Amino acid sequence: MSEIFSKDGMFDMKIGILTIGNELMNGRISDTNASFIAREANQQGWSVEAIMSVGDDFAAIKNRLDYLLSMTDAVICSGGLGPTSDDITTEAIAKALNLPLYTDENVLNYIKAIFTQFNLRWADNNAKQALFPQGAEILPNARGTAPGFALSVNGKLIFVIPGVPAEAKLMVVNGVIPALRKHFPQDEKYIVKQTIRTFGLSEAAVDNQVKDIDFQSLGVSIGFYPVFPENHIVLIAQSKNLQEAQKNLQKAQDEVSAHVQDYIFAYGEQTLEEVIAALLIEKKLTIAVAESCTGGLITSRLTDVSGSSDYLERGLVTYSNAAKISMLGVPAEIIEKHGAVSEETARRMAEGVRKLAGTDLGLSSTGIAGPTGGSKEKPVGTVYIALADSQKTICRHYAYRWDRKRNKDIFSETALFLLKNYLQ
Amino acid sequence: MSEIFSKDGMFDMKIGILTIGNELMNGRISDTNASFIAREANQQGWSVEAIMSVGDDFAAIKNRLDYLLSMTDAVICSGGLGPTSDDITTEAIAKALNLPLYTDENVLNYIKAIFTQFNLRWADNNAKQALFPQGAEILPNARGTAPGFALSVNGKLIFVIPGVPAEAKLMVVNGVIPALRKHFPQDEKYIVKQTIRTFGLSEAAVDNQVKDIDFQSLGVSIGFYPVFPENHIVLIAQSKNLQEAQKNLQKAQDEVSAHVQDYIFAYGEQTLEEVIAALLIEKKLTIAVAESCTGGLITSRLTDVSGSSDYLERGLVTYSNAAKISMLGVPAEIIEKHGAVSEETARRMAEGVRKLAGTDLGLSSTGIAGPTGGSKEKPVGTVYIALADSQKTICRHYAYRWDRKRNKDIFSETALFLLKNYLQ
Repeated sequence: MSEIFSKDGMFDMKIGILTIGNELMNGRISDTNASFIAREANQQGWSVEAIMSVGDDFAAIKNRLDYLLSMTDAVICSGGLGPTSDDITTEAIAKALNLPLYTDENVLNYIKAIFTQFNLRWADNNAKQALFPQGAEILPNARGTAPGFALSVNGKLIFVIPGVPAEAKLMVVNGVIPALRKHFPQDEKYIVKQTIRTFGLSEAAVDNQVKDIDFQSLGVSIGFYPVFPENHIVLIAQSKNLQEAQKNLQKAQDEVSAHVQDYIFAYGEQTLEEVIAALLIEKKLTIAVAESCTGGLITSRLTDVSGSSDYLERGLVTYSNAAKISMLGVPAEIIEKHGAVSEETARRMAEGVRKLAGTDLGLSSTGIAGPTGGSKEKPVGTVYIALADSQKTICRHYAYRWDRKRNKDIFSETALFLLKNYLQ
Repeated sequence: MSEIFSKDGMFDMKIGILTIGNELMNGRISDTNASFIAREANQQGWSVEAIMSVGDDFAAIKNRLDYLLSMTDAVICSGGLGPTSDDITTEAIAKALNLPLYTDENVLNYIKAIFTQFNLRWADNNAKQALFPQGAEILPNARGTAPGFALSVNGKLIFVIPGVPAEAKLMVVNGVIPALRKHFPQDEKYIVKQTIRTFGLSEAAVDNQVKDIDFQSLGVSIGFYPVFPENHIVLIAQSKNLQEAQKNLQKAQDEVSAHVQDYIFAYGEQTLEEVIAALLIEKKLTIAVAESCTGGLITSRLTDVSGSSDYLERGLVTYSNAAKISMLGVPAEIIEKHGAVSEETARRMAEGVRKLAGTDLGLSSTGIAGPTGGSKEKPVGTVYIALADSQKTICRHYAYRWDRKRNKDIFSETALFLLKNYLQ
């Protein structure tokens, strides 16, 4: 149910992250290394004190490094190890720490061998990647030519790894984390966490629902992560005793569950469509979908799960009234009398697609995603969701208030959530 | 064609960016606001001096803010404006600057009105979003309940905006950038930019195609922004003379276009589905879609455009062979002989859905999104896209290599790109 992170995290160790490159400062690329490093450090029980980005500039790199070293035990730097003239990280770190540079002959030969092996033309600037500050411990790079390195200065550790995400990630896991754990004495401490995924309550409402729970006395922290249109709750328990951490986490989870029960669709990292997939397979049920305003999004989400052909028979996007009438058998007079966006039409769509596909279940949506098409009685954001089985058809009406794209998102989530509730 | 950004960018202005939230420090989410803000600032000709992230912690926020203020003219803070107890940004900024907090009654009434309008239950913690430090200029939030604010302290500007990306982005463009331009004395300088959206070339390939173009002599900078599965090229020209800036931008655009012509689908901010919508409307053509491996995603993307009911008649997700046979009229022996994933099946699907819907065009996809279902002849990533009109049916085969989700994305992009080429 919950995940054990570490049996020897040391909560007092503070990490700083410095990502280096002009492409970060002009916004050309968004930084994914920092969050990866932060996540890895966190899972060791270490706390990330600061994350910074800086351009390829000697003075700025020294300034940021000094600042980070002033508040942390270890700084992990990423980026600027390439062969081109704008890659200055190694030289900048050496300057900042007053260390001379040397060429490591083994690394130089290794890089040259790669060039020979892949029949690449050698250019002298590649030799730059064999330069290291004196005292550096070299970290091998299994996915590229630029190795990283570690330095120990005044009891603090500095790591320098490439910026290419695939190279950086591997080096963090195989080089940086093991080195940090070796260098710093460690407390025995267990950290366990649990994610609770909810839909249907705003972030404020979730917070409000759980505000009377005494997490502190359980040694559990709670965080809220809105992932539109869902809200995820994360509980983290820490203790020197694994059983105690797990017991406290379970207590906190039980308390939270009791308060927001109706809105929970998963404990852990499962998506709503994965939860539904498991339920449909468990109950050996098949389904077909008839969509109007969601335009195929419900079906697309159901097919995001590998193996969805086991339960999803077909999906119909009956955008026109003609398609609703001819394929789903919605009577023209129903549409004429009640409108294409109505409970009556939604019901007939769900029943019609179920019958057409010969499935156990039929799910339908009809509504107004906007920005046009709304009326006073049926404003933009109106949606009817219906679900038919062999016995009955249920239909619900909802009123949302988002833009077209987010209306489609929340309409499809609403339909899937209704389906999940039915299956449970 | 191009957009005039500024007639008065000031190149010396230094910007600091501070993104706030525990979810950044534990790596649960990766920071996309910082790069967006950096890009916008850069396009104004301002330089981003430092980007930092910090957790929801009073002392740390004060420390980072002081550090950023020491080296910049303006600091843009994002995140921590929600109603929940872990959102402390407003209070932390007020504390750091020694300013008392007050409740803005207009904002409070505005938030309450939203709750009433949408029939949401009011919880008192929502009133927190109407709290501001004394002297704050309130920045409206068109997409959410939490407004941002601006403070002027010792000649420096501090902006605080929400962390929700959609809200933050709109507020940067409509609130922060205009306020910065108003507050700081400015050089007369024109900056014009143009985005060129491409599909079908990797970032390295785009870079390689344009590497011989002399952008420097034109005073134009080029940037590459991969937005999977697309690659966007951004050209920025600067000059004290507007006509010259526009002329140079046009020259650069012409040169780039000549090199990557076949891969361009839009100049400017139009999406591929918007380009297709305009073409279908201009040519008065209607379309129906039959999808297999894309599971409704092609249809869903076509319906992301408001007014899509004018040209999209229906979409069918024929996941099962039975659905392909009964609804689209694909002969069972075709599927048996060539397989559901084959050129023959794709062609019959496109022709079948066109005939069934009575539309001018029929578009189809059949392939293997993975991770299972691949074979040696037809590995995961194989897809056939067919497009039928009254005269003929074209069909193309592609081989990709991504995970299920990205295969679905690139399959649907490929289908839409083929449709765009046909319409042009």
